[in-house]
Amino acid sequence: MIRQLGLVGCGLMAGSFALALRRAGQVERVVAFSPSERTTRRALELGIIDQRADTAAQAAQDSDVVLLGVPVRSTQACLEAIRDHLSPDALLMDVGSTKGDVIEAAHHALGSRIGQLLPAHPMAGKELSGIDHADAALYQQRITILTPLPSNTPAQIERARLLWQAVGSQVTTMDPKQHDAAMAAVSHLPHVIAFAALHALIDQNSGTDFMAVAGPGFRDFSRIAASDPTVWRDILLSNRAEVLHQSRLFRQALEQLEQAIEQSDGAAIEAAVARARDARVAWPGPAGQALAPSAP
Amino acid sequence: MIRQLGLVGCGLMAGSFALALRRAGQVERVVAFSPSERTTRRALELGIIDQRADTAAQAAQDSDVVLLGVPVRSTQACLEAIRDHLSPDALLMDVGSTKGDVIEAAHHALGSRIGQLLPAHPMAGKELSGIDHADAALYQQRITILTPLPSNTPAQIERARLLWQAVGSQVTTMDPKQHDAAMAAVSHLPHVIAFAALHALIDQNSGTDFMAVAGPGFRDFSRIAASDPTVWRDILLSNRAEVLHQSRLFRQALEQLEQAIEQSDGAAIEAAVARARDARVAWPGPAGQALAPSAP
Repeated sequence: MIRQLGLVGCGLMAGSFALALRRAGQVERVVAFSPSERTTRRALELGIIDQRADTAAQAAQDSDVVLLGVPVRSTQACLEAIRDHLSPDALLMDVGSTKGDVIEAAHHALGSRIGQLLPAHPMAGKELSGIDHADAALYQQRITILTPLPSNTPAQIERARLLWQAVGSQVTTMDPKQHDAAMAAVSHLPHVIAFAALHALIDQNSGTDFMAVAGPGFRDFSRIAASDPTVWRDILLSNRAEVLHQSRLFRQALEQLEQAIEQSDGAAIEAAVARARDARVAWPGPAGQALAPSAP
Repeated sequence: MIRQLGLVGCGLMAGSFALALRRAGQVERVVAFSPSERTTRRALELGIIDQRADTAAQAAQDSDVVLLGVPVRSTQACLEAIRDHLSPDALLMDVGSTKGDVIEAAHHALGSRIGQLLPAHPMAGKELSGIDHADAALYQQRITILTPLPSNTPAQIERARLLWQAVGSQVTTMDPKQHDAAMAAVSHLPHVIAFAALHALIDQNSGTDFMAVAGPGFRDFSRIAASDPTVWRDILLSNRAEVLHQSRLFRQALEQLEQAIEQSDGAAIEAAVARARDARVAWPGPAGQALAPSAP
């Protein structure tokens, strides 16, 4: 049971976390800071938080658990603001979708208190952001990846695991570098590809006519192109090196397949499709959702 | 009302067409030829056809409408086999997903009777092929593209339109070259990309670990990688030039986006994502399915 949960940033991610912990009866009191006064006012109205804090430091003060739910770019400034106000045994977590840059910012901002941060990436989201869309079910059947630092203790990791499980997540741990590489491969690059595929399509004279006869395959393939520009600007900047590395690997694979097509090498094309199909068919499905119905 | 429908090839596509026309009360009698005796036996048992033909020619003979439901590679041989047995005013259609190669084969095979063929591409399918999976609803809320030849008459086109509407399709017409370009852009290239993305992933040492934390975005993006190798070998060989052209356009768009990432150009990345998002959001959805619930 958490006596006090402090939220620094009070949007969809932090609000849903608080709501889910409340639902689970795991928290007594929630205090939140947001640079937008409207946000914390709404959070109070919606019964998501118990008290508004005037500063990030105030939200951190006396909290057993502090959740940082701010854009990755604001991480360093927020951590600097709360560093000297953290209880010595408070558990501090973020929710950023890249970890290398968060950890670098944390080293700068937290210094010797770095051991209080356990970086976390709950793989959940919605198309609509903001506290008004906070949802106690947001983390259910989703995977949350913890990327412990050398300074984290097994007790901290266990405590974090129980919290994310309490909000409904399946929890796994990864090395931060491995996490960023994995995200580049299975999320960031697919987004980049979908963006580029849309660009290539609409920059053709007949692009609109072509899209008019596109079917369900195109619908699913291109769904992730409809993503938030500022969120994805930040992710691609944060995970730049890994994304570019994955893109190089992809382009090599694409060129190899193009070559087989160029040479009308039917056997090579068939083998290539079979290899891709087998890998996709063997995939057990989205992490944490193996047994859940697929999303609409 | 069709007095006799002749099927040359009797798998999922032709069987579903016959079944749907029957359901619609639009056909008196269905005769079918398949090189596999088991297939036509099953079609009889399932009540999809009324009579087995011993040859393709026999299925064509005395039929008002002949539907060619064979792999694109078999088109020429089948057309040669039926050419001299077509009733003079029979309407002949195929169901191939590429048109340039079908039309070329038809010119060779049909000669002066080329005007009897009205090339058609019903954009429908299932993961399971064969007559056992024939489904009267296969063409419902799907688009069927007719690609008339200069030798087709308006009356033929109208007749074909009514037939495909009778099985539930939304019918549109396109120039054959435009059709193949469109399919390369919105279907064939996305498949090639998905195949290559799977290859790039599984050829990495950590590929399996990466896939283990992939989420719903990856699920949808990569779904079309699980496609039939021989079907896609044939499609990519048939539409080779258009696919390679689309792939070049895509690679240019990808390299441009990579450059913005390489240069950490946040404004350019944000603008690029916004452009892709706007195009995807403005897309009305799969042709023919605008009002239908999305597939699982």
